[in-house]
Amino acid sequence: MVIFDDGQATTSNHDVEVIQQASYTGYTDPNYFLAHILAYLETPPYLRKQLFPMHPDLRLAGTLPSLDMPHHLRRTDWCQYREGIATSQDVTTKTRGNPVKKLKPKVSKVMTRVDTGLHQAVYVSIAVPTQSRLTVKFRDSDFLNIPSGELTATAVAPSTPREEAGYYWGYSTRSASSLSTVLTECPFDGGYDLTIGTSERGISLFDLNESSAKAQAVPEFRHMMVVFGGVAGLEVAVKADKELAQIGVHSPEALFDHWVNLVPGQGSRTIRTEEAVWLGLMGLRDLVLKNGM
Amino acid sequence: MVIFDDGQATTSNHDVEVIQQASYTGYTDPNYFLAHILAYLETPPYLRKQLFPMHPDLRLAGTLPSLDMPHHLRRTDWCQYREGIATSQDVTTKTRGNPVKKLKPKVSKVMTRVDTGLHQAVYVSIAVPTQSRLTVKFRDSDFLNIPSGELTATAVAPSTPREEAGYYWGYSTRSASSLSTVLTECPFDGGYDLTIGTSERGISLFDLNESSAKAQAVPEFRHMMVVFGGVAGLEVAVKADKELAQIGVHSPEALFDHWVNLVPGQGSRTIRTEEAVWLGLMGLRDLVLKNGM
Repeated sequence: MVIFDDGQATTSNHDVEVIQQASYTGYTDPNYFLAHILAYLETPPYLRKQLFPMHPDLRLAGTLPSLDMPHHLRRTDWCQYREGIATSQDVTTKTRGNPVKKLKPKVSKVMTRVDTGLHQAVYVSIAVPTQSRLTVKFRDSDFLNIPSGELTATAVAPSTPREEAGYYWGYSTRSASSLSTVLTECPFDGGYDLTIGTSERGISLFDLNESSAKAQAVPEFRHMMVVFGGVAGLEVAVKADKELAQIGVHSPEALFDHWVNLVPGQGSRTIRTEEAVWLGLMGLRDLVLKNGM
Repeated sequence: MVIFDDGQATTSNHDVEVIQQASYTGYTDPNYFLAHILAYLETPPYLRKQLFPMHPDLRLAGTLPSLDMPHHLRRTDWCQYREGIATSQDVTTKTRGNPVKKLKPKVSKVMTRVDTGLHQAVYVSIAVPTQSRLTVKFRDSDFLNIPSGELTATAVAPSTPREEAGYYWGYSTRSASSLSTVLTECPFDGGYDLTIGTSERGISLFDLNESSAKAQAVPEFRHMMVVFGGVAGLEVAVKADKELAQIGVHSPEALFDHWVNLVPGQGSRTIRTEEAVWLGLMGLRDLVLKNGM
């Protein structure tokens, strides 16, 4: 999830970092505020206290709807994967071979203790900086041993639960200082290979779906980016973007592979961004299943 | 929009009417509360003070997202249709023909004054009880005369703006005491001719869409009803329904023409009803456009 600055908020960048540390940013820096809340909501409830210090932004976050994602596990839930936080490191030094004989090499073994929201202490056999979040994987047979004292696990990439077992494992949140950096600061090799901008002035989503079913108007893709505008639409974000002005891009259609209207014939006069996200994800589902690699 | 009681709220029916008049019903009668809020939100802002007396249910309703529907017109917006409230009746009696000649029939003309949120007073030439809400239609040419003092209009059915001009003109709210009365108390002649129950245990919406595109599995319809369950699903609403028990219906599949899963492969463990409504409306759009009469 990328939160981009469309240049419409009347924020002063003056002392923003100082402000962010101390006070509510909903008015002073709404982009930061949104990213802050989204990152908080994605975090499993049992890790929130440790990863998110008290902050006025989060004062009412507890009243927001629970996302109840697969990695938001309760203490008694079993899943082969869990999110955790490194709490301490133990270094045990063993002398290999017969300890009576001198000059044998000593081997240090680092174990990191991880709080994964289980009753049991969990250890991974690599060094992880204290207070870091990580994803761990248990052996499947550990399920049987749950009542026992300690568990060992392997540290894996956050994408592993999805890639190996098909779990939806949350989202990452990235902040972008402008519309163009949403695309240029893509973390994937090769960038986004399918980009869709949304606007009530675009072509009908249903025409896109039909034409792509027939004529393969939309090629296969690995990384799709769907961009939603704020209250004033994506047009103002293009105008506020200095890098786009420099390369002569003045309209958002030129930025994206497709410029799409998610709700042709909309009844309400405005669609809020948070509403458009639902509609977009549902409306693009077919395309993702058919053309996503 | 129909709010039905699925029998899961721990309300006492004792003195419910008294309670409703005075206090917050979010806990004592959540079905009433929801219907109350939805009816309030549908009402154009300029009519709310008159149609909704102060009530604790509505204390925070002003902070809810604006629906911004086409009939939520601002004072300076022009639309050939408007929602209004009858404020007073004028009866003018005229003697037809030459008033000097006696025994001519007297003709009473009733005009109802309507507040439609415009600066101008608006009159319709029928008697409408004071404080009633009604839909009025202006002559198109009235637009030119807007700055002048008074306007006359015709009272029309609330469905007229949609039928004549394609406007989305809001929704009506109905309360049902059980799941079965959602269907049996249908206000349309012939009832609902396409009913869809939603559940994560139903068939995939995408299979329904594909099979209906090919084999006409879904016939043409006039009045579709899509039913969403509460937290515990539609199954508990069937169990709580005495009329369904009497006729031997014990599972929701038997109640509906189609029993559909809106989000096959859902990532989050639960989908809230208010989220399912978005997904359902978007997911069923194609079906409505193709098969709706």
